[in-house]
Amino acid sequence: MIKAGIIGATGYAGGELVRILMGHKDVEIKWYGSRSYIDQKYYQVYQNMFRIVEDVCRDDNLEQLAEQVDVIFTATPQGFLAGLLTEEILRKVKIVDLSADYRIKDVAVYEKWYKIEHKSPQFIQEAVYGLCEINRDRISGNTRLVANPGCYTTCSILTAYPLVKEGLIDVDTLIVDAKSGTSGAGRGAKVPNLYCEVNENIKAYGVAGHRHTPEIEEQLGYAAGRQLVINFTPHLVPMNRGILVTEYANLRPGADGKLPAYEEVRAIYDKYYGEEKFVRVLDKGVCPETKWVEGSNYVDVNFVIDERTGRIIMMGALDNLVKGAAGQAVQNMNLLFGLPESEGLELVPCFP
Amino acid sequence: MIKAGIIGATGYAGGELVRILMGHKDVEIKWYGSRSYIDQKYYQVYQNMFRIVEDVCRDDNLEQLAEQVDVIFTATPQGFLAGLLTEEILRKVKIVDLSADYRIKDVAVYEKWYKIEHKSPQFIQEAVYGLCEINRDRISGNTRLVANPGCYTTCSILTAYPLVKEGLIDVDTLIVDAKSGTSGAGRGAKVPNLYCEVNENIKAYGVAGHRHTPEIEEQLGYAAGRQLVINFTPHLVPMNRGILVTEYANLRPGADGKLPAYEEVRAIYDKYYGEEKFVRVLDKGVCPETKWVEGSNYVDVNFVIDERTGRIIMMGALDNLVKGAAGQAVQNMNLLFGLPESEGLELVPCFP
Amino acid sequence: MIKAGIIGATGYAGGELVRILMGHKDVEIKWYGSRSYIDQKYYQVYQNMFRIVEDVCRDDNLEQLAEQVDVIFTATPQGFLAGLLTEEILRKVKIVDLSADYRIKDVAVYEKWYKIEHKSPQFIQEAVYGLCEINRDRISGNTRLVANPGCYTTCSILTAYPLVKEGLIDVDTLIVDAKSGTSGAGRGAKVPNLYCEVNENIKAYGVAGHRHTPEIEEQLGYAAGRQLVINFTPHLVPMNRGILVTEYANLRPGADGKLPAYEEVRAIYDKYYGEEKFVRVLDKGVCPETKWVEGSNYVDVNFVIDERTGRIIMMGALDNLVKGAAGQAVQNMNLLFGLPESEGLELVPCFP
Amino acid sequence: MIKAGIIGATGYAGGELVRILMGHKDVEIKWYGSRSYIDQKYYQVYQNMFRIVEDVCRDDNLEQLAEQVDVIFTATPQGFLAGLLTEEILRKVKIVDLSADYRIKDVAVYEKWYKIEHKSPQFIQEAVYGLCEINRDRISGNTRLVANPGCYTTCSILTAYPLVKEGLIDVDTLIVDAKSGTSGAGRGAKVPNLYCEVNENIKAYGVAGHRHTPEIEEQLGYAAGRQLVINFTPHLVPMNRGILVTEYANLRPGADGKLPAYEEVRAIYDKYYGEEKFVRVLDKGVCPETKWVEGSNYVDVNFVIDERTGRIIMMGALDNLVKGAAGQAVQNMNLLFGLPESEGLELVPCFP
Repeated sequence: MIKAGIIGATGYAGGELVRILMGHKDVEIKWYGSRSYIDQKYYQVYQNMFRIVEDVCRDDNLEQLAEQVDVIFTATPQGFLAGLLTEEILRKVKIVDLSADYRIKDVAVYEKWYKIEHKSPQFIQEAVYGLCEINRDRISGNTRLVANPGCYTTCSILTAYPLVKEGLIDVDTLIVDAKSGTSGAGRGAKVPNLYCEVNENIKAYGVAGHRHTPEIEEQLGYAAGRQLVINFTPHLVPMNRGILVTEYANLRPGADGKLPAYEEVRAIYDKYYGEEKFVRVLDKGVCPETKWVEGSNYVDVNFVIDERTGRIIMMGALDNLVKGAAGQAVQNMNLLFGLPESEGLELVPCFP
Repeated sequence: MIKAGIIGATGYAGGELVRILMGHKDVEIKWYGSRSYIDQKYYQVYQNMFRIVEDVCRDDNLEQLAEQVDVIFTATPQGFLAGLLTEEILRKVKIVDLSADYRIKDVAVYEKWYKIEHKSPQFIQEAVYGLCEINRDRISGNTRLVANPGCYTTCSILTAYPLVKEGLIDVDTLIVDAKSGTSGAGRGAKVPNLYCEVNENIKAYGVAGHRHTPEIEEQLGYAAGRQLVINFTPHLVPMNRGILVTEYANLRPGADGKLPAYEEVRAIYDKYYGEEKFVRVLDKGVCPETKWVEGSNYVDVNFVIDERTGRIIMMGALDNLVKGAAGQAVQNMNLLFGLPESEGLELVPCFP
Repeated sequence: MIKAGIIGATGYAGGELVRILMGHKDVEIKWYGSRSYIDQKYYQVYQNMFRIVEDVCRDDNLEQLAEQVDVIFTATPQGFLAGLLTEEILRKVKIVDLSADYRIKDVAVYEKWYKIEHKSPQFIQEAVYGLCEINRDRISGNTRLVANPGCYTTCSILTAYPLVKEGLIDVDTLIVDAKSGTSGAGRGAKVPNLYCEVNENIKAYGVAGHRHTPEIEEQLGYAAGRQLVINFTPHLVPMNRGILVTEYANLRPGADGKLPAYEEVRAIYDKYYGEEKFVRVLDKGVCPETKWVEGSNYVDVNFVIDERTGRIIMMGALDNLVKGAAGQAVQNMNLLFGLPESEGLELVPCFP
Repeated sequence: MIKAGIIGATGYAGGELVRILMGHKDVEIKWYGSRSYIDQKYYQVYQNMFRIVEDVCRDDNLEQLAEQVDVIFTATPQGFLAGLLTEEILRKVKIVDLSADYRIKDVAVYEKWYKIEHKSPQFIQEAVYGLCEINRDRISGNTRLVANPGCYTTCSILTAYPLVKEGLIDVDTLIVDAKSGTSGAGRGAKVPNLYCEVNENIKAYGVAGHRHTPEIEEQLGYAAGRQLVINFTPHLVPMNRGILVTEYANLRPGADGKLPAYEEVRAIYDKYYGEEKFVRVLDKGVCPETKWVEGSNYVDVNFVIDERTGRIIMMGALDNLVKGAAGQAVQNMNLLFGLPESEGLELVPCFP
């Protein structure tokens, strides 16, 4: 039985980790960390866990926790883990970090976009970027630190990855227009996240400046084999869960000067995702919708070629709390401990 | 492996049956009945099932279906099963009927409230009313026909049952004010159920005339040991899932003329539900909320005594598609086949 | 031109006052009070007012404000106005108080339910309870202080008032089950009011203890001619605006032992509301819905008689920010200044 | 007093026309056309109009209607007006058509995108495209037929128009990612528009094929001085009202090879919209949100320059039923009859 600890267990991503791990037969949660609710019963914060979780919330003591568990999930604000992580801790325990602290290899880029100093850059190179479908073979029993990807990032990258990797699109024209449910904004008590402010509204935010931008650029840059810049625009949608990305890029014509046909593009998606459990390439003409992946670890992707403009419109949908956070974290944990990758993640999407 | 067939598999309750049975290790769905989508892939109707269900939808052929499966779930309109059921079918297969056809023992009451003629009243007496927490001992391998309770009904009855049974309240003063999410209205294409009609609105409907009224009255009547009439008022709430009932009744004073204390009432709830897996009596002062049971088979109940008015306010919350429909149907199926009652129903509520 | 000042102009009720007064041809807002946003442009808080309101927000200086305007609206927390009000201020300016400070005549009741000490009880008797349809003749140019009724209260009282006044119902059996949109909870940054906490959920709160209870009891007590206690249960609904109340009471049989007929009850509603601009008694069989009054000063009411139980179910719907707060405040202001009562309030409900 | 008739008065746009015209001092509605509800009271369909509108719904008799009114609004499906319009009718009455029948000058383009034959192409050239801020000087007392622009179209065009007109962006790179509330889908009873299907979901639809595409292209083509093609992708958002567009284009560098500065771009927006009542260019850094224009005739626009990619992100928000339909129709009517353009349209946005 793998012993797990969660720091930040009363945030939305932390709560989802608890929900998922409750159904994971090889894991036992030993530590519910929540600085805000120390000594309160966990179920008093999340009444859905009444009669399921009897533990109390505990303070964020990383060192003590490292002694007691096999894996730690940190669902914490940026900078938290970077400020506490030590070699000693990493020798004792595996860590799946749901924050951005170790996602970006260039510490200057991190510090510029996050506007905080990185306190433990020495671990950045070691950390593996845990986008399982792409980096699976780099995550194993020897891995100590996984940087779990961001929610927008997971969706944005997986939607375009095959075409970037295979050079079908002009990456300099790539634009990602993303739409997210409100749980992505976290459980902090802020006026802009109040019900009456979010409901009956849609807005863009962080335009040309959202922190997930360099993360997407770095990963797609590896696929493209060179640096690239993109436009990424997130929007806040009045729903609890779900991210939809709509991505635009110019298709590169073939040697004959013609655009690739549907079948050619489809074949490339199938090449990368045909065997993937959690990425579903939809039937021709079916657009991804967030409701069809809700509560599950799936990413649904599809595309439309626009002959008139020469562009391809790629679309992807996932549940930001599952594949965009807790589900992918468990997927990474499974890889870390040599378990089947989908263990505990056979979650059927819940509709309506 | 139990072979199951679903008639009405593309309604919301039918879809939830599919979701739940996908996670039930002893059941295999062999027949996805849907008159509206014959020969279409099931996942084309519910894209959440893409790559999970490969079957096509089939016509409603009850006789043919009875040959092929061990249990049939009918998630169909009122009158459907009553119009087709025969002794021959019941000899071959067990049936869990999610409609109201066999819930009400007095056929005249059924015909009055549902305004249709009952075509097979000969099976009414045999049918067991499948409110598991109350009728568990009457559902077993010998049972052929289970009348699965209504969504409002399950919530309304379980919330008041212990106090009615033990005579703590004056049942003639019982009022049930119920609030439901919109999936309870079904998937029919009707103007009143359009997004813009339901969103940003709340209304009562079926006031003093809703069909679940006699069902509640009959069952609570058994508990009270005599006939009774109540007020039941349903309301439509802009959310997908969930039912909340707020029930009011006069507490009967004890021999000393005083109202029972919190502890006395609590003890009675605990007597009936303390060992129940799916009924959670909340801590003192905590009101049930539909979000805490969403996606699960739980019913959360609690109460407040109002010393000023001498009334007790009882509250209950459940997910109308799970404990109010498909979950309870599976719970009944488990009883029918001698499986652990919670098999396949260990669903952790999903929040947010 | 009447000069008006608003204290608490950046709360939801304050914002609605601004919206309504913008369309009132006889009023000019001279002071936008908001302690939280001092010196910020009002439209920077409420961008809907961009290019409409150019003023900046100002601190809460009641004395200074009293020098500059003819009427002050206080859309402030309980205790605010009671702590600052003086005879000197009341000599200079009329006040419409949207808080509860002067609504309850018995200061002990106020202090018990609100759990704060009342700092200026000497003005309680003078204050007129501004439920215009009932107290219209007591509000005129001589009135200095109007206690604007609460949102739940306005809806609860108006729905039952004619039957209480005429003795048609047994007031000791009166139960008010109320449902409110989330703007009623105010604009404070609190976790329970976050989008993801309110969305896809319904709950009761303040059961047997909500502060609007004694206010309803006092006013209906005047109508009944004696003290009474009721059950009042508010619920939080995932929508921005709107209150719906469902009220239950035993109908009193006539001399012949029979319940009054629909026509008799209807005649009584018409007697009280037939000439009222803002109370609409709906056609037989039509249930009030909050969407039909949204953005307007209307209260829609109706009733159903249940012959089986001998009860009447009364229903009422209003927009909590208009007739439940800012609209009624303007209606009171119109009375104070001798303007047509509906001036500035000819708001057509906005659907969808 | 202008006499107006509405055909399609019980659709959402038709209902909004009624709401707006109720507050227009120079107009009287003489005809509420609704084929689906003939002889029913209008308020029985839209209970918000109870005690406001007493008329019954009437059949769609265009000829008879032309005799009785000064202006007809047709809020009808595509092809309806084209199938009935005659020279005789146009001699008697002015028409503001909210459908697409006369928006597109090239009838072949219309027939290709709408997949119906145009029955009266002889009126296409005469019809004026009623985007008031651009075509104001072409709409006057002599105009007989106004093609009221589409909701997506109005928002998409106005957001980019100044930069297209002044040549600041490379129009061949223009991408419009649009998000709409559900009232844009109309009041037809269709499964995809049911509450439970729309709620908690976002999806793209009509990708690379939505009918508003050629309308945007034609109008922006006039501004650019040449034909152009764009990508336009609409999305369905779980809210009643509102459209937000996010538009991307490459900024054209100046003679110095540099991108234009914020101030330069801002000056161009101000040049076109500085004097416009209904177009609000927001302060630097403020993103348009649909909630700030709800219920009003405003379009809020703004932009962000991304130095990294060389693109500009333009954003626009409007209420699809007001500026995107009924409000603009009234604005056009005001121009047709020589009234102040904002008569009846001084609607303050309603929040929350």
